[in-house]
Amino acid sequence: VTEPLYNVDGELVPASEATVNVRDRGFMYGDAAFETTRVYDRTPFEWNAHADRLRRTAATLGFADAVPPVAELYERTADTLEANDLADAYVKVSVTRGVQPGKLTPDSEVDPTVVVFVSELPRGGVMGERAWDDLARLQTVETRRPADCALPSGAKTHNYLNGILARLELRGTEADEAIMLGPDGHLTEGATSNLFFVVDDVLHTPTEELPLLSGVTRDVVLELADEHAIPVNVGRYEPPLLEEATEVFVTNSTWEIRPVQEVDGREYGRGPVTNELARRFNERVEELYDS
Amino acid sequence: VTEPLYNVDGELVPASEATVNVRDRGFMYGDAAFETTRVYDRTPFEWNAHADRLRRTAATLGFADAVPPVAELYERTADTLEANDLADAYVKVSVTRGVQPGKLTPDSEVDPTVVVFVSELPRGGVMGERAWDDLARLQTVETRRPADCALPSGAKTHNYLNGILARLELRGTEADEAIMLGPDGHLTEGATSNLFFVVDDVLHTPTEELPLLSGVTRDVVLELADEHAIPVNVGRYEPPLLEEATEVFVTNSTWEIRPVQEVDGREYGRGPVTNELARRFNERVEELYDS
Repeated sequence: VTEPLYNVDGELVPASEATVNVRDRGFMYGDAAFETTRVYDRTPFEWNAHADRLRRTAATLGFADAVPPVAELYERTADTLEANDLADAYVKVSVTRGVQPGKLTPDSEVDPTVVVFVSELPRGGVMGERAWDDLARLQTVETRRPADCALPSGAKTHNYLNGILARLELRGTEADEAIMLGPDGHLTEGATSNLFFVVDDVLHTPTEELPLLSGVTRDVVLELADEHAIPVNVGRYEPPLLEEATEVFVTNSTWEIRPVQEVDGREYGRGPVTNELARRFNERVEELYDS
Repeated sequence: VTEPLYNVDGELVPASEATVNVRDRGFMYGDAAFETTRVYDRTPFEWNAHADRLRRTAATLGFADAVPPVAELYERTADTLEANDLADAYVKVSVTRGVQPGKLTPDSEVDPTVVVFVSELPRGGVMGERAWDDLARLQTVETRRPADCALPSGAKTHNYLNGILARLELRGTEADEAIMLGPDGHLTEGATSNLFFVVDDVLHTPTEELPLLSGVTRDVVLELADEHAIPVNVGRYEPPLLEEATEVFVTNSTWEIRPVQEVDGREYGRGPVTNELARRFNERVEELYDS
C-alpha cells in the first residue's frame, strides 16, 4: 500500500510527512477556514460555491486577502487528485492564519498555511454508489449551536468542538448524526449535515437566520426543489414538528442526500420527495461524467 | 541565535521541526485541551491546579484517560525548560485527541499528541518585572461568550476563535483586551483574562455560573482577598456597574494581576485594592525563589 500524498503549501508530501508547525494558529487556536468538496470524475462539484464560502469564512476571520487565488487552489486540488490517481473523491482545503509572532491577537501580516487533503469515494451520479452504508439515525442532543454573536455559524472553521460534543452524546446509542437546537430551541442542523423533512407534502428546512451552516448541498437541494415544483418551506421549527414528518433526510457534500430512518427512536420510511430529489441530484452529478 | 526546543510526544525538537500531522484532530478540529502555566525559578506555579484543569478539559472532551500522568507531564515540562536553559518562563502544554480513522465522531481509542512549548518571561515575585509593558486598555465588544450548552466554558481547548473574533474587534483602537458579555448580557471575561473591579471598596468578579473560564490566577486572587480580609462579591453584573468602579484589573497566568487604565474610553487609576493584591501575589511568588 502506497501512502496517499497531501499538498501542504503547494508541495506534494506523503501523508505521514504532511505536517504543520505546532505554532501554526490553525493548530493552536483552530484559526483556519476550510471546505470539503466532492469530486466526481476529477471535477470538484460546485467548486465556485465552495471557493466563495472559503473566502467568506476567511473574511469573517479577518484574513481573506491571504487566501490564495481560486485558480491556484483549483490547481493544487487537481494536482493532488492526479498525484493520487483519484477520479472520485472528496477534497478538504484548509487555509490557516499560519505562524505569527505574539499571542492570541492576530497580526494583519498573514503567511497562510494551505493544506489540500484528498480521499477516495465511490463513483457518484446515476450510475454511482452511495458514500454512506446505511440510512441515517438521528438523535436530538443537549449540545446546542452557539449563537451567531459568539461564533458566526456561516463560517466553516477548524473550531469544530461544538459538533464533536454533539456527536459524543451519541456514544452508546445507534444514532450516527446529532441534531442540535439553536439558542432558542429551534431545530437547526446536524453536526456535519443540514436537515430536511416533509410535512403535508411540503419540504421543510430550518432557515439560515438561525445559527446553522448552510451547506452547498442544501443550496443545490433547494434549487432542485424549485426547478421541479416541490413546495418548500424554509423557517423556524420547534422539535415537535419533526414528529409529524413523513420523510426526513440530511445533506452534506459527502453524503449528498442521505435518507433518515430514525429520529429519537421514531421510524421513518424513505418517501417520494426524498426519492425524487435524490434522483434529480444524481442526474445533476451524472452530467459531470458525460462532459 | 539558537532555536528554542519544544517537546513533541516526549522528544525535544527544534521549534522549526516541531510539528503535528495535518490529520491530527488538534489541527483539523481544535480537538485538544491545553494549559498555560507560569514558571518561576524553574517551578511551575500552581502546577496541580493546571494539571487538574487539563484533565477536566480532556474529560469534557471524552479523552481524559489519554492524558499522560501528571508526573510525566511535569517531567516533560522540566526537561523542556532545562533544554532551553529557562528559569522564568511560561509553558503551554497541549494534549490532542491525535490522529484517528474516520471523520468527526471521535473514536474511543486515543493515541494523543502531547506538545510542550516554552518561552522566556522576566523574573517574577517581589524582585521581579512585569510580563506586560503597559496597563491594560479594555473595550467591550459585540462578540459574546458562547452559552455553556454550546461550548462548555470551563474547558480550555484549542477552539479559540471566540476570543480571536473578540480581539479582532479591537483593530484600529488602542484597546488590547476585549471584554465579552454572556448570552444574557452580563459581564463575563476578557479573551484571555478574568475581570475584577472595585465598587464601594468591594472587589467584584463575575461568577463562574456565567460562561467564563475561571483562571488559576483568578482563584489565587480570590484566595488572597479572603486571607487578607478584602471584601469580595462574586456575581452577575450588567455593564453599567463597571462605570461605577474605582479600580479595574484583569488576571491570567502570564499577566498575573494587570491593572486597567481604560475601559471603553473611561480612565481608571491604579488603586489600593489592586496594589495590595499585586503585592500579596508577588509575595506568594517570591516564596518559590526562596525555596
